[in-house]
Amino acid sequence: MKAESELYNWRGSGMSVMEMSHRGKEFMSIIQKAESDLRALLNIPEEYAVLFLQGGATSQFAAIPLNLCKPDDPVDYVVTGSWGDKAFKEAQKFCKPSVIWSGKSEKYTKIPSFDGLEQNPDAKYLHICANETIHGVEFKDYPTPKNNDRLLIADMSSNFCSKPVDVSKFGLIYAGAQKNVGPSGVTIVIVRKDLIGNAQEITPIMFDYKIHVENNSLYNTPPCYGIYMCGLVFEDLLAQGGLKEVEKKNIKKAQILYDAIDESNGFYRCPVEKSVRSLMNVPFTLEKSDLEAEFVKEAAKEKMVQLKGHRSVGGMRASIYNAMPLAGVEKLVAFMKDFQARHA
Amino acid sequence: MKAESELYNWRGSGMSVMEMSHRGKEFMSIIQKAESDLRALLNIPEEYAVLFLQGGATSQFAAIPLNLCKPDDPVDYVVTGSWGDKAFKEAQKFCKPSVIWSGKSEKYTKIPSFDGLEQNPDAKYLHICANETIHGVEFKDYPTPKNNDRLLIADMSSNFCSKPVDVSKFGLIYAGAQKNVGPSGVTIVIVRKDLIGNAQEITPIMFDYKIHVENNSLYNTPPCYGIYMCGLVFEDLLAQGGLKEVEKKNIKKAQILYDAIDESNGFYRCPVEKSVRSLMNVPFTLEKSDLEAEFVKEAAKEKMVQLKGHRSVGGMRASIYNAMPLAGVEKLVAFMKDFQARHA
Repeated sequence: MKAESELYNWRGSGMSVMEMSHRGKEFMSIIQKAESDLRALLNIPEEYAVLFLQGGATSQFAAIPLNLCKPDDPVDYVVTGSWGDKAFKEAQKFCKPSVIWSGKSEKYTKIPSFDGLEQNPDAKYLHICANETIHGVEFKDYPTPKNNDRLLIADMSSNFCSKPVDVSKFGLIYAGAQKNVGPSGVTIVIVRKDLIGNAQEITPIMFDYKIHVENNSLYNTPPCYGIYMCGLVFEDLLAQGGLKEVEKKNIKKAQILYDAIDESNGFYRCPVEKSVRSLMNVPFTLEKSDLEAEFVKEAAKEKMVQLKGHRSVGGMRASIYNAMPLAGVEKLVAFMKDFQARHA
Repeated sequence: MKAESELYNWRGSGMSVMEMSHRGKEFMSIIQKAESDLRALLNIPEEYAVLFLQGGATSQFAAIPLNLCKPDDPVDYVVTGSWGDKAFKEAQKFCKPSVIWSGKSEKYTKIPSFDGLEQNPDAKYLHICANETIHGVEFKDYPTPKNNDRLLIADMSSNFCSKPVDVSKFGLIYAGAQKNVGPSGVTIVIVRKDLIGNAQEITPIMFDYKIHVENNSLYNTPPCYGIYMCGLVFEDLLAQGGLKEVEKKNIKKAQILYDAIDESNGFYRCPVEKSVRSLMNVPFTLEKSDLEAEFVKEAAKEKMVQLKGHRSVGGMRASIYNAMPLAGVEKLVAFMKDFQARHA
């Protein structure tokens, strides 16, 4: 793999990416290539800036209202899981957000119908979480904002680059890199340039999109190695044929796993409404919940790890991001059938 | 090197550090070991928390006043270079900072005498930048704060872990990791625990020390690979015999370079007052400034790169952080003498 062969010596420079000056020509070429490859992958229009930042999606929960709102501005949040809820709560510090729909009472197993959304016409933006990592619900299409600015904003942390997206439908898209496109410590923001430049006075300079756009994400030292790794992933996704091809693989992987659950006569259960099941995160429970610990233990023996559901919801969760091969999912499905045969 | 042998498979786990769940037992052991090794290195007292964060020192310029001040609180800044100046300017958003001393009129070549500092007795803290990367001035001792809380705060980004520090003299120490202890993308904060828990309401959750202390730096996904690399560096510094030994090496490296400058009969010049010259960053100019471009060009041919001074000050700057071996400095000195012989 390229990261291994280049660990000490990036393309004959004699330097590891970890040693480079972030203003040197070597790293400049790395970040520029990463941006242009990402633009090609997502077909990002010219009027959008692409930023490589730090601090995770959690930092964006604050940066978005700080950059796009005044303190008294109303904004709308659709809350389909824990991440959307966190985004809403953080926005309360910086503007006047409303939850216009919440899936909480149904344990975050649904996406609302767009017709039924009571949007505030004065809202500065409408915020969604495109895929809820913990609950496994994913938007398959996107609501049209009815606010004046027609601004739709999406947290795509856990399904970024897993399928094509029409960027022009959004005012801003953001994503922590660590699920599909790189190591943790890099946060990608794609923002329409005309929205930039009106940050609140209390905006920390590191949260001010204008600063980062003007400095091409190099206002201070960026997470160089992480950006380099993201660049390698973008190259690989392009080499696979782009996001349409990536999506095909992800659909196939998810299909065989959901089929295994649905065809288990109730031995396994996925609580999420079928039409909005995530291609990335597949939560499921066992009918006999006392077998769940045994399931995790036996799976670990077969080298299938990190299958336990998030501590807030329990059960099991298989995260099948881009990097998970079909064979990995097939192995899990085979194990599930075998486990069922032995314990049914 | 360990990072190479463990790139794909961390100690038999079958996982790269880049693939681990940040809440799994493997990464937990990595971050805990990194913290305990850093505590051993700097002899950090129990009443201090150690945090591994993101966003660089620039994020801390905001986080410090947001966590330690109310909006009307006065605070004191000693400005010995560009970084101290940036810290002061960012604090203006969140409290009432004063510059009680500035080296700007003398082009940032000095550290003030501590007796002459007119500290505000009502200031919440006194802020210094322990080593100014661009200008090459370094505090050799620290002023005693006269404010009520006796709080001294230091940005140690560019000399962190280059020598022993009496942590108990400080309320808070912060440092971007990328100079001496790891790759860019990790920021270390050492903060006295009793100072935590009074953040302003407008503090983004990612800037709230209380959240990070309560979650052992795992509130959201941390920069796992960077923290792992910092841990490897801490292990290495301990194996070298600790920071007293590291300091000895750094003194020797700096000595031969400053000697070469001072003994060049004015061919090379270091503008910084001798008593406060940095062990890490050695700025120098050539008497014949039109030779500087040639100097950089010839040095690059000898594989000595990144010698050009910061665009804001010009001239040359040799950064001789922990990772630079004595032989590297000796090679530079030999080149300087040869260059002088050919061009004097």
